[in-house]
Amino acid sequence: MKRVIIDMDDVMADASKGILDMYNSHYQTNFQKSDFQKNTLWQDEVGIKYLKVRNGLFQPGFFRNLHVLPDSQEVIEKLQEKYEVFIVSAAMEFPNSLKEKHEWLEEHFPFIHWKNLVLCGDKSIVSGDIMIDDHEKNLISFKGECLLYDAIHNQPINDYKRVNNWKEIGEMLL
Amino acid sequence: MKRVIIDMDDVMADASKGILDMYNSHYQTNFQKSDFQKNTLWQDEVGIKYLKVRNGLFQPGFFRNLHVLPDSQEVIEKLQEKYEVFIVSAAMEFPNSLKEKHEWLEEHFPFIHWKNLVLCGDKSIVSGDIMIDDHEKNLISFKGECLLYDAIHNQPINDYKRVNNWKEIGEMLL
Repeated sequence: MKRVIIDMDDVMADASKGILDMYNSHYQTNFQKSDFQKNTLWQDEVGIKYLKVRNGLFQPGFFRNLHVLPDSQEVIEKLQEKYEVFIVSAAMEFPNSLKEKHEWLEEHFPFIHWKNLVLCGDKSIVSGDIMIDDHEKNLISFKGECLLYDAIHNQPINDYKRVNNWKEIGEMLL
Repeated sequence: MKRVIIDMDDVMADASKGILDMYNSHYQTNFQKSDFQKNTLWQDEVGIKYLKVRNGLFQPGFFRNLHVLPDSQEVIEKLQEKYEVFIVSAAMEFPNSLKEKHEWLEEHFPFIHWKNLVLCGDKSIVSGDIMIDDHEKNLISFKGECLLYDAIHNQPINDYKRVNNWKEIGEMLL
């Protein structure tokens, strides 16, 4: 059985929405995720100013309350029939997030066993056949097939096969 | 640089002492770790009765308050000069332990970066060159060199090179 490694933030959990909510509240703006499609607005402006409010990620509750990305539940449940699915999140920078991510997964993806959750700092330690991630830094050391999940911060990256949503992943892998 | 994967419980942290303290308190006994050397007392009797008090592992504080095993700090700090050291703990069964393990490591091993900590459920996901672990179930799927760290519960296992303490590991790897 091939092993699929799936990231949490911005692949299963809508971290970008959480981040933009934090940003909009601080700067009194009204950015939506769609404002960052096929452009470099994040790199050019918003992402830089966001660093000033990034400490919100360390606050209790941030990761626990993220929304589930559309169709991720249905597709991941089906993937489990065909693949060995591991959820791997580079969460170690945020100690409060560790239990929150465990609880979030248990609530929204109760069909994933705790044995298949990995919380780490550096994903070069994990091995598998397919990795779905929104960060180049995680894909770069992976020896299997890489799928870059479309996100507001990765628009300029062209080195990986981009997937835009879970329906596309389902069509590709199921 | 070769990668060494080091377990936490019963390799860096004295989980067996924590478990025996819990056991002794419940059963009004006075077992010490030395009572389990080169015998099967754990398998034959104590380990079976211990299952009744195992829920103590889920209580806040259990993992946070474990003692550090002798010489582990000095040897691991030196190993970092020669190897890429990752700490990998199968902690996911115990959600309370996640933050506690992060904090414990930060207190007792401040020279280990959070990027090098992995909390998982099933260690078959990690890859490296050398694994030091007290559980056969973790070593069995590892493709590199395996070192079985001596523990009260692994006395009958003879399939791996056994290491008895950190001084021995230092002599072997440094």
